[in-house]
Amino acid sequence: MSGFELAEFEGRAARLQAGMAAAGLDALLLTCPPDVFYVTGFLTRFWESPARPWFVVLPASGAPIAVIPSIGAELMGKTWLRDIRCWTSPDLRDDGVSLLADTLAEVAPGAGRVGIPMGHETHLRMPLADFARLKACLTSQFVDATDLVRRVREVKSEAEIARIRAICGVADRAFERVGEFAAPGVGLDRVFRDFQVALLQEGADWVPYLAGGAGAGGYRDVISPATPAPLQIGDVLMLDTGAVRDGYFCDFDRNFAIGRADEAGRRAYATLYEATEAGLAAARPGAVAADVFHAMHRVIGQDGAAGRLGHGLGLSLTEWPSLIAQDQTELREGMVLTLEPGLQIAPGRIMVHEENIVLRRGGADLLSRRAPAELPILG
Amino acid sequence: MSGFELAEFEGRAARLQAGMAAAGLDALLLTCPPDVFYVTGFLTRFWESPARPWFVVLPASGAPIAVIPSIGAELMGKTWLRDIRCWTSPDLRDDGVSLLADTLAEVAPGAGRVGIPMGHETHLRMPLADFARLKACLTSQFVDATDLVRRVREVKSEAEIARIRAICGVADRAFERVGEFAAPGVGLDRVFRDFQVALLQEGADWVPYLAGGAGAGGYRDVISPATPAPLQIGDVLMLDTGAVRDGYFCDFDRNFAIGRADEAGRRAYATLYEATEAGLAAARPGAVAADVFHAMHRVIGQDGAAGRLGHGLGLSLTEWPSLIAQDQTELREGMVLTLEPGLQIAPGRIMVHEENIVLRRGGADLLSRRAPAELPILG
Repeated sequence: MSGFELAEFEGRAARLQAGMAAAGLDALLLTCPPDVFYVTGFLTRFWESPARPWFVVLPASGAPIAVIPSIGAELMGKTWLRDIRCWTSPDLRDDGVSLLADTLAEVAPGAGRVGIPMGHETHLRMPLADFARLKACLTSQFVDATDLVRRVREVKSEAEIARIRAICGVADRAFERVGEFAAPGVGLDRVFRDFQVALLQEGADWVPYLAGGAGAGGYRDVISPATPAPLQIGDVLMLDTGAVRDGYFCDFDRNFAIGRADEAGRRAYATLYEATEAGLAAARPGAVAADVFHAMHRVIGQDGAAGRLGHGLGLSLTEWPSLIAQDQTELREGMVLTLEPGLQIAPGRIMVHEENIVLRRGGADLLSRRAPAELPILG
Repeated sequence: MSGFELAEFEGRAARLQAGMAAAGLDALLLTCPPDVFYVTGFLTRFWESPARPWFVVLPASGAPIAVIPSIGAELMGKTWLRDIRCWTSPDLRDDGVSLLADTLAEVAPGAGRVGIPMGHETHLRMPLADFARLKACLTSQFVDATDLVRRVREVKSEAEIARIRAICGVADRAFERVGEFAAPGVGLDRVFRDFQVALLQEGADWVPYLAGGAGAGGYRDVISPATPAPLQIGDVLMLDTGAVRDGYFCDFDRNFAIGRADEAGRRAYATLYEATEAGLAAARPGAVAADVFHAMHRVIGQDGAAGRLGHGLGLSLTEWPSLIAQDQTELREGMVLTLEPGLQIAPGRIMVHEENIVLRRGGADLLSRRAPAELPILG
């Protein structure tokens, strides 16, 4: 049960089923780790292997049905699911397709409607040729269920918020220790390793995501792997982590000046701090995602990052909504978000700041410990 | 360039293009991290975010074309690609679809044929609704390119083999240190954390996969997350890691008896050791995957695991082929495989053994250091 109460999963299923009823769906087919974990509690790092597909079918009422490789039967048997259908995978002739087709034909017979997430930030985690075979086996119709799944998953329960708060605390403690291993002369790859070690020591189960950068007065980008290039005095170092505990992610970063900070770096940091304050004030139930974007964008101005300035967070490193001008998603109590303003200090020198929050009735509540108001200097 | 020579990537593209010519394809569309890294050298942990799709189009000749979110422009610019087309993602109206459609229309005009991996162990990493939109924009036809991609990726270059050997060495050294932190009374979750720390300290860039188990005389399954339950004298502990260095995976495990080993455990271990020896002897160019399965299965007999007894390895934790009775894939020089025999010691008590090998002209060459012939006892 992954430490959650049965009522947690019953509530999730019921909320999805209410959305299914409104959309006229007889079943929901889920294939990706966050969706499967959300409705079942099935938590494993085995998803890392692309060899096997995993299916969960949520009928119009009652508990989900698992249609999974037999290697997962033992673990799925520990969840609240009682209807667990297995095949020996990989099967090169029929890798679960007919078993899944039979299951769907049972819960969505005739011209039944089966929802699948097909929209932004989703993909179908099964071979495309097998999906074509599945469709050919069935008289049911597949329709997009992205909106109904996201509306339910976006609002976190108190049990989920507690888990996200716990992993944010892990990262807070690891960030406090960066001065123990980041210093002039130390390679960025070594800093990345030591930071992952600190996250594990502070209580992360694993560290799916670590990014960052370092450079004189700013870094070039935020998605490159670390090189052995040593940190130098005057560098700005940024570490951004998506660590996991009990299935939930944190996602925030911290910036550090190595030895000394130049005026441009201090100013950029102060602007990002102020932009985050504006985001914290704007992020409240009833506003829309774009409002929070604009609140931050007004502060960072024309040097601001063109991209999004934050996003949802929970079972994935990034979830809907996006804090961009286009996104009119209504913010609701219980949503967990990142605020992530960035700006260009000079050509090829950027800085990004990030915090994690939960929306309460009165406004934003920090899950990460607020970064210091001034760019911290190491050493 | 991720440390590879330009010729490495030119060779990969040329081999894929030879397969494309044979299959009558005008373009290949790749969307998943291992395929994208394989042809471009674009290595990032940013794939952890499901928010953005990433596309690489390999034309019938010449270098690949990247069609990617602008946040990746800087990093993609460091690869051998010169044609990099970006959009500001996420874009809720058109998240790269029209840019990709234009690119495909250019390289596969009219009734051109575009290959996509659609078969076993693949999925399309883009929203299904966007794929439907893409198809609607184009006159080209999408066909399955799984076989051609796997035939090329299955045979590793010497540069790739060196990387897999390096990460296997990292895991070898980490496994040597298990006795430093695994002892009676220590929770399995703590052992998992400390083992990940050891992998990082020994040189892993990150640890995408860690599984294992512990139990009296054997464990129940091999995909569950660790619980705080303390190790006890008489337990068999298994740790199985897929760690990464420079983009390449190792994937092997080690078993340890805590304090003492019972006769059944020693016998099971010896049988698995012998099965692996049989696999090592059978794994050679010219044999087929099923031959290696049968060689191991003959040793483990009717108590043997029903599932597969090994698989390909490289850019993913698991790759084709599968060591199962069905798989008639011809083994070729340069393939990297895992041998992974498992058996049931008693109901609810299993044991799994795993090694990593590369196929040379003369037969299998170990990449992992061979496990001890007898079940090692800790403490």
